[in-house]
Amino acid sequence: MIRGKTVAIMGLGLIGGSIALALKNSLKDDITVTAFDCQITTIEYARQCTPIDFVTDDYIAAVKEADLVVLAVPVLQMIPLAETIMPHLKEGAVLTDVGSTKAAICREMVPILREDISFVAGHPMAGIELSGIAAAKVDLFDNKFYIISPETAKNETSVELVESMVRAIGARPTTLDLVHHDSCVAVISHVPHVAAAGLVNLLGCSPEDLEHNLKLAGGGFRDTTRIASSDADMWADICISNGKAIQKTLRSYQEMMGLIIDAIENGDRQAIHSFFRTAKLRRDALLNETEAKTRREQ
Amino acid sequence: MIRGKTVAIMGLGLIGGSIALALKNSLKDDITVTAFDCQITTIEYARQCTPIDFVTDDYIAAVKEADLVVLAVPVLQMIPLAETIMPHLKEGAVLTDVGSTKAAICREMVPILREDISFVAGHPMAGIELSGIAAAKVDLFDNKFYIISPETAKNETSVELVESMVRAIGARPTTLDLVHHDSCVAVISHVPHVAAAGLVNLLGCSPEDLEHNLKLAGGGFRDTTRIASSDADMWADICISNGKAIQKTLRSYQEMMGLIIDAIENGDRQAIHSFFRTAKLRRDALLNETEAKTRREQ
Repeated sequence: MIRGKTVAIMGLGLIGGSIALALKNSLKDDITVTAFDCQITTIEYARQCTPIDFVTDDYIAAVKEADLVVLAVPVLQMIPLAETIMPHLKEGAVLTDVGSTKAAICREMVPILREDISFVAGHPMAGIELSGIAAAKVDLFDNKFYIISPETAKNETSVELVESMVRAIGARPTTLDLVHHDSCVAVISHVPHVAAAGLVNLLGCSPEDLEHNLKLAGGGFRDTTRIASSDADMWADICISNGKAIQKTLRSYQEMMGLIIDAIENGDRQAIHSFFRTAKLRRDALLNETEAKTRREQ
Repeated sequence: MIRGKTVAIMGLGLIGGSIALALKNSLKDDITVTAFDCQITTIEYARQCTPIDFVTDDYIAAVKEADLVVLAVPVLQMIPLAETIMPHLKEGAVLTDVGSTKAAICREMVPILREDISFVAGHPMAGIELSGIAAAKVDLFDNKFYIISPETAKNETSVELVESMVRAIGARPTTLDLVHHDSCVAVISHVPHVAAAGLVNLLGCSPEDLEHNLKLAGGGFRDTTRIASSDADMWADICISNGKAIQKTLRSYQEMMGLIIDAIENGDRQAIHSFFRTAKLRRDALLNETEAKTRREQ
């Protein structure tokens, strides 16, 4: 149970900041939240504008009393940060992360773990295109799935502790193994980000049309490309960290675009129609699925 | 001026229905709106639930008194409908359309036009993923651009009449020639539709992952693929009608995906970062552009 425990949030970005806010909001004085960040403006903001108990740029001070340590930095910084704090973790502390990719992080994490430290990989499915502590929201995780990949955990109680934190922030814990996690998020999140960024970059493909394109791009275009406003550093890191699954999915996507180009070239209306119809039926099913699940689990 | 005129709306779908609602809303008894549709349920709905003056399944009755005839059927049905009504149009009537593609329609329209009939091609930039008269909204066009391509118009007054209608429904008329229209909408609307449908279809690419993918696809995915819920028939027709421009843009898109696949394969973080950063800067500029224009023109 997370109640009564001390949780250290390592990195006060959108996700780390929102976890801190949600924990203090739901458990009040029944939880102690410490936070580490290396940016002075973030630290000042967190001290003045959030109920986090202790905010510091000293990673040792942040983790030394913590029962649960949440790594909430960009994916490529998870391992260096874990290495740095490892000697200073409390005996028997539980370590978790919020990275959007899992297999690469776990592969490098296992060899550097202290014997008494259990690592439970996690991933809240609640990204938005904003970033930073100022964008953090107490209800960011409300009713959202939070994937837990328990393969690297050394005991059941460490998994239960992370699940308890997940419930305390309002999210719904769900289990998925590392490999399926990575291929799943490549399809539902990483490749859509690449695809959306590509659509925006197409606007400038023929420079003489750029002005019209910018002027006329309407609501549909803005929605489709919303996620292209996400942080470039974070997404470059994700593409490196989940490279294999993203490449594989992008190749399928490219192939699919090739089939449509051929169908248009051949005037094959039947094939084009079937492509759009399959997508419409599946997306409508997806919306119904989401609604039904929400109702069932409420 | 559209005030005092009779306007025939040919096809009561989302766009035709919304034009009819907006015209009656802004001009009340100072305009007569007739409407043709071939579906009995649509006709009944329009008669009972809208202020359209006269709704009929008889195209001759709909057009014979009309000063302005608006073709609002799917793009591949524009020319057959125009041929059918041509002999019955009032002397000197103005003909316009709302098709999402322009060059192909105009190429086929010009040879079948009666000498006294001026055709002014139009395209309201206001699609949503819903369709049908029941989805029509009086404010669908509020402050939206409405492209007019005047190349096929036989006189200035016919262009002015269409512009006057555009203003009456709350939209902002803007001029663009046929070829630039078609390449522009390929980039900002048609290819994004294909791309979004492709992303949805990827969910089922490996059937064993379909269940996870459907369960976990979150808000970002739903936004990015919103337009994939659009009418499959309409979009198949658009792909046929604007095939050349769509193919060209899809090829650029495919190539761009290829560059990213290579960058990921080579671990070239700099190239991946630059791809995401360019997209973020351009999309943020697009949002600012839209806001600034709206303020300037209000």
